[in-house]
Amino acid sequence: MTLPSKVRLVEVGPRDGLQNEKQPIGVADKVRLVDDLSAAGLSYVEVGSFVSPKWVPQMAGSAEVFAGIRRQPGVTYAALAPNLKGLEAALESGVEEVAVFAAASEAFSQRNINCSIAESLARFAPVVEYARSHQVRVRGYVSCVLGCPYEGEVAPEQVARVARELAAMGCYEVSLGDTIGTGTAGATRRLFEVVGREVPRERLAGHFHDTYGQALANVYASLLEGIAVFDASVAGLGGCPYAKGATGNVATEDVVYLLQGLGIDTGIDLEALVAAGQRICDVLGRANGSRVARALQARAG
Amino acid sequence: MTLPSKVRLVEVGPRDGLQNEKQPIGVADKVRLVDDLSAAGLSYVEVGSFVSPKWVPQMAGSAEVFAGIRRQPGVTYAALAPNLKGLEAALESGVEEVAVFAAASEAFSQRNINCSIAESLARFAPVVEYARSHQVRVRGYVSCVLGCPYEGEVAPEQVARVARELAAMGCYEVSLGDTIGTGTAGATRRLFEVVGREVPRERLAGHFHDTYGQALANVYASLLEGIAVFDASVAGLGGCPYAKGATGNVATEDVVYLLQGLGIDTGIDLEALVAAGQRICDVLGRANGSRVARALQARAG
Repeated sequence: MTLPSKVRLVEVGPRDGLQNEKQPIGVADKVRLVDDLSAAGLSYVEVGSFVSPKWVPQMAGSAEVFAGIRRQPGVTYAALAPNLKGLEAALESGVEEVAVFAAASEAFSQRNINCSIAESLARFAPVVEYARSHQVRVRGYVSCVLGCPYEGEVAPEQVARVARELAAMGCYEVSLGDTIGTGTAGATRRLFEVVGREVPRERLAGHFHDTYGQALANVYASLLEGIAVFDASVAGLGGCPYAKGATGNVATEDVVYLLQGLGIDTGIDLEALVAAGQRICDVLGRANGSRVARALQARAG
Repeated sequence: MTLPSKVRLVEVGPRDGLQNEKQPIGVADKVRLVDDLSAAGLSYVEVGSFVSPKWVPQMAGSAEVFAGIRRQPGVTYAALAPNLKGLEAALESGVEEVAVFAAASEAFSQRNINCSIAESLARFAPVVEYARSHQVRVRGYVSCVLGCPYEGEVAPEQVARVARELAAMGCYEVSLGDTIGTGTAGATRRLFEVVGREVPRERLAGHFHDTYGQALANVYASLLEGIAVFDASVAGLGGCPYAKGATGNVATEDVVYLLQGLGIDTGIDLEALVAAGQRICDVLGRANGSRVARALQARAG
């Protein structure tokens, strides 16, 4: 059982996180957050989303955010671009990568993006092709990989089918998301075993929510399966839209603490990361969702 | 890698939990908590502590609590008894097991119980002997096994020495406590590897604090090392005396959820456990420290 020596963290706080916070915040605060995160050593930041602000008001101004950030060498700044119109806008903003977002559950796909899984994949294909023709890499998300708020259990084979199609259409990496946080360590290992037969593990990432407190155990279980890329959200930004008041995205600080403890290199300055998380929590007027942040702050103060 | 098929949870909320809550509560509420816990299927409840109420006012009335509970068949009701005077009182109350509490760190031992590790062990020896002569089993705790608030790192070999002495003097089980919650999964595995050379693993238990969010990952790591007994505190009662405002004991609900997901039998009714935890949180006027409880309550309401 050898763990990966190096792990890449994909910081999704400015997008997946802020998108699920009730209160929209201004461009300047978003720019500051992204710059704080890159300064703390994150090498990949999902900055925003090129979707209609009618649907997702929290993501309004993503183009302005891209225009405002100080781009650091070696840092990838990415955005969600669910369709060709969004992709055009993303390319104009100079994004370095885009992401598309599919679901492993039919019911979730219908309710979340208003079409079947097959329709969503058909819609993404030209997006991926167009992005790649512009030398922009595409990352694929699959949601509800360990459970669906509408369907309950989701078979790993179903996740594998969606992941395989995303990889086949050109996504260089597929992130498997436990959207409702119900997955536990054993199911996580089985998931990567099954999906790993269709998509090489070095092209898979784990995206865990801490709604039931299981996220770090699932990250550890994934590491044991050879997974070396994880999505996380600074200060646990985002919450859980399917259980109001509950915890959502795993906090980046907590993942970094685990990885440091395991002797795995992330290149991240934990203290700077905690400061970045606290600053955005203060802007939002919300409690800090990172246990590591709270413990370090309690110890310091 | 086979996980244990069955795990025993040692519910420490009424003792370790309430002892570290600021506000003492009355005997009736403690009795209700213990009865709720046994009704939810916990087979082992640490009910109280026979120490001077001058030192630990939260544990005043432990004898009355023992007199008030409805004892269920198959449930072990235990108490902390750090010295012969405490043990006499515990025996009079009809405890079925007692526990003694040592530290793996010299500095912690001095500050916490006012004597060296060797002195504490010498003090426990007659307690263990006397208890066993009354057919009362003794459980040993070792604190600071993955870090000390005063000394920092603690060597697993040092933990192994203390654990070995407790086992040798007659403790049937030794619970290894990550008192400040700084341990991560790799260190947890190494700990059980090293201590397991001195004390058989079936006589070891894990006691994790979630201060840095690592507790469930550490439980999973321990399961992978063959550990099948874990201490936990309903609703995460207790907090962390070394980082005010931070999380302390891992919540029993969260451990149960993990174990259920792994297909490991605990005999516990999660819904009843969540209700028991919420009730005591309401009494204390504190937020529920279990993520599982919060998520299930959010989903229900």
